Amino acid sequence: MTTVGILGGGQLARMLALAGAPLGLRFLVMDTQPDACAGQFAPLLVGDYRDEDALAEFASKVDVATFDFENVPAESAQWLSERVPVFPNPRALGLIQDRLAEKTLFRDAGVPVPEFADVTSREGLDAAIAAIGTPCILKTRRLGYDGKGQFRIRPDKAGATADDAWDALGAQAQTVGLILEAFVPFERELSVVAVRGRDGEFRTWPLTENWHVDGVLSASLAPARVDDALSTIAFDHARRLAERLDYVGVFALELFCHGGELLANELAPRVHNSGHWSIEGAETSQFENHMRAVLGRPLGATTMRGHACMLNWIGELPDADAVLQVAGGHWHDYGKLPRPGRKVGHATVRRDSAMELAQVLQRVGESLGRQDQVAPVVDALERSHS
Amino acid sequence: MTTVGILGGGQLARMLALAGAPLGLRFLVMDTQPDACAGQFAPLLVGDYRDEDALAEFASKVDVATFDFENVPAESAQWLSERVPVFPNPRALGLIQDRLAEKTLFRDAGVPVPEFADVTSREGLDAAIAAIGTPCILKTRRLGYDGKGQFRIRPDKAGATADDAWDALGAQAQTVGLILEAFVPFERELSVVAVRGRDGEFRTWPLTENWHVDGVLSASLAPARVDDALSTIAFDHARRLAERLDYVGVFALELFCHGGELLANELAPRVHNSGHWSIEGAETSQFENHMRAVLGRPLGATTMRGHACMLNWIGELPDADAVLQVAGGHWHDYGKLPRPGRKVGHATVRRDSAMELAQVLQRVGESLGRQDQVAPVVDALERSHS
Repeated sequence: MTTVGILGGGQLARMLALAGAPLGLRFLVMDTQPDACAGQFAPLLVGDYRDEDALAEFASKVDVATFDFENVPAESAQWLSERVPVFPNPRALGLIQDRLAEKTLFRDAGVPVPEFADVTSREGLDAAIAAIGTPCILKTRRLGYDGKGQFRIRPDKAGATADDAWDALGAQAQTVGLILEAFVPFERELSVVAVRGRDGEFRTWPLTENWHVDGVLSASLAPARVDDALSTIAFDHARRLAERLDYVGVFALELFCHGGELLANELAPRVHNSGHWSIEGAETSQFENHMRAVLGRPLGATTMRGHACMLNWIGELPDADAVLQVAGGHWHDYGKLPRPGRKVGHATVRRDSAMELAQVLQRVGESLGRQDQVAPVVDALERSHS
Repeated sequence: MTTVGILGGGQLARMLALAGAPLGLRFLVMDTQPDACAGQFAPLLVGDYRDEDALAEFASKVDVATFDFENVPAESAQWLSERVPVFPNPRALGLIQDRLAEKTLFRDAGVPVPEFADVTSREGLDAAIAAIGTPCILKTRRLGYDGKGQFRIRPDKAGATADDAWDALGAQAQTVGLILEAFVPFERELSVVAVRGRDGEFRTWPLTENWHVDGVLSASLAPARVDDALSTIAFDHARRLAERLDYVGVFALELFCHGGELLANELAPRVHNSGHWSIEGAETSQFENHMRAVLGRPLGATTMRGHACMLNWIGELPDADAVLQVAGGHWHDYGKLPRPGRKVGHATVRRDSAMELAQVLQRVGESLGRQDQVAPVVDALERSHS
């Protein structure tokens, strides 16, 4: 009997446990919150990730550990890895927690990135703006999540907003650090969801196209409307990064598509919201393959079954029946209480053809009064198949 | 928040809970055994189904109840249904628990069945054998499961085996009752897995072909190799029975195919081993649709995704990697201890084409040294598509 420990007990841990159960696995989830939603289907250990007693108890009860949450302190992950195998490895996790180290890795691996610069002072910010140009974005190097800890500097009043940006984030220059990044007016955001096994085997799901609202993922479409050449480049970027990090498990590489070129935005060292469609849309889901990878078992096929669109539910759940009543409509309620800005569930609609998917999405959007959410996906499907 | 109670905590309850989690459901499983495998992923209440205190505790904690085990005493189901909604309804459950009532229902509904007769005495057995002919099978009316409580009477020595049959089962004539059934030398065994909603909506998955070894299911193939006319007849039988029983939820109707005709064998009032392939092989699995039906939600599409074969693991699990390493190979370890005759897991192989499925099954059979288990399925696939 193998028990998998998961640090973080949100919906990702919940879906990992549900996907790992058929593999005969048991789980132990650790979270700071006693009502963490993964606890509804797996034993939950409540504790702080920095508490060595809690970590020691966790370590004593699991055979291998992984993450639902990438901002577990790297030292905690390191401490744990001296007691049980931890995947992905703490070095990879630590590196990715630092935007500057992450962007540097991308550049060193030959993966194009938007221009960036380390910012350590107010004067340094001005120099960085001068070098990179506007628009650009000042970000904290660590602990950013879903658009928080970011400040956009506009071209029309760069000096003024540089002051504002420094007011907002400058205090963190000497704590978590700051990085200035060029703003890319991208046409599309794509992601590669990929998995690498303990033996180095590497697989990717088809490229996914993503739409955000207020900095939070709103909808994903797979396969993305891209030609094979662009896919190959994207997959190659993901593979090179995974190999440099000696990464084991699933990760997502977010890419901006701008003028036919791909620029890497960030790497999420875990199963990812833009891969949720794989539960119904792929032969093997990202959740099952993450478990297979972490356990050192053979990876499952990542081939698609038709076309799939994932719609995120933020804040509260809409009426499930609008989704359940359509052919290929699948519902995912994370068992969380509603709260503004909180990811509380998602739906996936899977159809054999792109046009069928567009029609069903249109219907779901109308039933829910959420035409705005489905419109860009329907539009993308119709344009690419007309 | 809706909590679903499941009476019986085996692999069916386990797979129901895993399928119901994304619908936002919580579960409470009741079983007589503290190590019931569903308890690994859902809260478990240990108690006897006849213990009113335990049932009252169960009823107080659930919003709706259903079954993983069809031999829950009908009186317990009835008692429970006076406190919470129970699906399928206790009348249907009670009727199906009695082979004589079940066969009579089939006949009354116009569903052909092998000849049968009620047997209440040793003389009655002789009369029934004379009427039905040999070979035939003496069975207990209640509590039969997987070939137990049955005795086959052969033509060459009918008198002698009638004595043996009576020695084996006669004592039960006045307790659970006995039924004599004609033995049908069927060419194939098929099953209809079907679901009926609270509103009467009725759907079936494609017809499944099954192979048994020592009276226990060994392999299932979907879709079965049958023409549309035969499927239509089978689906019609299932629909008529469901309507007569006012059945809500998933059930399986087992059918013998003999000389191009279908004869009903039995109805299993629950999700069924011959529908396990639907987890990966259908748009919506039998487990999810059972939950949707019981909750009164819209039913999901039961359309197939290609071709699927389920292989049962009895007694102990073989090497999972032999299945995990093939494209479309999926593993289901029920988290049970090995024990002779026990269903401990299954595998499903799903492929887009029948020939691909045959090739992959052949490879799995060879890897596991289980050529005998896959051979009839491979043979069926090759014969029907050559």
